[in-house]
Amino acid sequence: MPELTTNRLAPQPRELIQRMKEYHPPLGDRSGVRLDFNENTFACSPKVLEALGQVSRAQLTMYPEREHVEAIAAQHLELKPTQALLTNGVDEAIHVLCQTYLGAGDEMLLPVPTYSMYAVYASGTEAKLIEVRAEEDFRFPLNALLASITPATKIIAIANPNSPTGQAVRRDEILKIVAAAPHAMILIDEAYFHFYGETVMDLVGRVPNVIVARTFSKVYGLAGLRLGLLAADETAMKWLRRVISPYSVNSLALACLPAALEDRAYLDWYVGEVRAAREEFTAALARLGVKYWPSEANFVLTKIGAKHAAFSAAMRARGVLVRDRSSDPGCDGCVRITIGTREHTAAGMKAMEAALREIGWTGDEA
Amino acid sequence: MPELTTNRLAPQPRELIQRMKEYHPPLGDRSGVRLDFNENTFACSPKVLEALGQVSRAQLTMYPEREHVEAIAAQHLELKPTQALLTNGVDEAIHVLCQTYLGAGDEMLLPVPTYSMYAVYASGTEAKLIEVRAEEDFRFPLNALLASITPATKIIAIANPNSPTGQAVRRDEILKIVAAAPHAMILIDEAYFHFYGETVMDLVGRVPNVIVARTFSKVYGLAGLRLGLLAADETAMKWLRRVISPYSVNSLALACLPAALEDRAYLDWYVGEVRAAREEFTAALARLGVKYWPSEANFVLTKIGAKHAAFSAAMRARGVLVRDRSSDPGCDGCVRITIGTREHTAAGMKAMEAALREIGWTGDEA
Repeated sequence: MPELTTNRLAPQPRELIQRMKEYHPPLGDRSGVRLDFNENTFACSPKVLEALGQVSRAQLTMYPEREHVEAIAAQHLELKPTQALLTNGVDEAIHVLCQTYLGAGDEMLLPVPTYSMYAVYASGTEAKLIEVRAEEDFRFPLNALLASITPATKIIAIANPNSPTGQAVRRDEILKIVAAAPHAMILIDEAYFHFYGETVMDLVGRVPNVIVARTFSKVYGLAGLRLGLLAADETAMKWLRRVISPYSVNSLALACLPAALEDRAYLDWYVGEVRAAREEFTAALARLGVKYWPSEANFVLTKIGAKHAAFSAAMRARGVLVRDRSSDPGCDGCVRITIGTREHTAAGMKAMEAALREIGWTGDEA
Repeated sequence: MPELTTNRLAPQPRELIQRMKEYHPPLGDRSGVRLDFNENTFACSPKVLEALGQVSRAQLTMYPEREHVEAIAAQHLELKPTQALLTNGVDEAIHVLCQTYLGAGDEMLLPVPTYSMYAVYASGTEAKLIEVRAEEDFRFPLNALLASITPATKIIAIANPNSPTGQAVRRDEILKIVAAAPHAMILIDEAYFHFYGETVMDLVGRVPNVIVARTFSKVYGLAGLRLGLLAADETAMKWLRRVISPYSVNSLALACLPAALEDRAYLDWYVGEVRAAREEFTAALARLGVKYWPSEANFVLTKIGAKHAAFSAAMRARGVLVRDRSSDPGCDGCVRITIGTREHTAAGMKAMEAALREIGWTGDEA
């Protein structure tokens, strides 16, 4: 087949894909204390592993059936089954939400800095992404956001608490946005809900433009399973269910989810660990003179300054992974550090003291 | 919040989503002999369950890392690591392919009848879907397909062997299409490859517009895990990797895949079962006078005729699930029956003889 072996060019993808934002998480070797991805640093509930052990070879042969487990998750959140949708991680939730609501001429509003994937999936659509910078000290830019709402606004994505800053948005601020943009879906991404304690889940079913995301990748310790959840009015759900693959959530995630939901004692224990560790960690930061922002989540954003890269490398050399966020909007010199169990967080702090000494950090660089 | 509790309308999704094709697989209670989804009817390799048993609680907390396993899968297929992409089932592969290459003004060519999800995902884009009907007895419509190629053609999707017909496309026919549409991605979906034995995987890396899909949901018996694979030139892969979530394939699927690939003896045993069962089943169909189409896959399309729905219901009453394909293009009165192990297939045939008697089938309805 001589005509096939010539050096022809590959077919070109859509123009917008050629411009699309790339997301390259720093994966690879992650051995050590993992304070880089805001995962549970210890383990999931032992009940989950028991549930996994019950799965048979015959079960694996069958396409996943999510309906029954979706109903259990809905009940756990005091929702109707029609109001809850399990997703292949919150990444798929954002992807499907963008595909459903964003087309040419539409706009997505995004307070920044925030979780990277909103912008990534928005850039995979024809819509225009409008970023609204946080105020001083990463305070939620309520007025700027309200002023940016137009008839073309179709999605406003708000992580609450926000990453990488750890800051929360007050309920009354969310309600103002929901009321000001009835024509747009207001995504409230509550990935870190358990560390914060406040939710707007009660608005689901009462307000048609609120959509709440939850993940099982953080406090539940199940990032490997890929489990997210969207909660919204059933009118919105009807469209999202049309776009999502009925098989996108795997059978093992579905087999494990009920056990994860049931073991509230394990969750409470882990949340208690993180809250205590967060207090110890920020107290140590204050002693060291490292600027940080108070956090409602399982991580703390610190300002290391010009030596942020050397710091992250020195931490890695000590077996502690942290996440350089210096290239996020307004985050120059910032490093995000996950708060895990008290033991893991103490190890992180010990490494941090040594790393700061090693790089000759004086605080003047910040 | 009185302004929020009024009966406001939900925000509208994109117009194309409102028109999008819906896919409602007949899930729900699937107890019995499953001859409806072309799954492995028995079980996956016992080695897979062993691999699953090695997974720890700590591992579940971590985001999946696909790179190492992707390299193993690539090597198994004699590809470079850059040429293979694992996906959350072939569904995600099709979704990502459509999103990458199909925009307004573009066209996707689809010989029909075929696997439903190509049309579903194409309908989630602004592109025009052009269906090309199979010839008499579902023969591949090569000439009509070649005549339908335009400069706007961006994807041509060919399932080989095809579902629900079981028919294969010859390599020389594929090569003609590949040569005639160098500006389009030619997807060859080899979901049923092992039952057929012919592949065009060797074109990957030599021809930039060939993209081959494989699944682990059929012969491997891993539909629950959600594992698909795309193989293409690294230029195309660069774009697909930009669109796909780096975490879309879950850790348990990644943990199981190497074991599934290694146990070739198990695969050979299952393929042998299906081939023998397929011969026995079609011989029985011939004896009964039921029209069927010769199949290269693990299913057989039968022509039951006007009583197709009564037949499917009678099969279900006997504990055997089959798939009514009567609403597929050109498939009026057709029912697709999965070929499994010899034992399961014999049970299917026994139920079929009884069901046909019960519905008073004479063959004149076909």
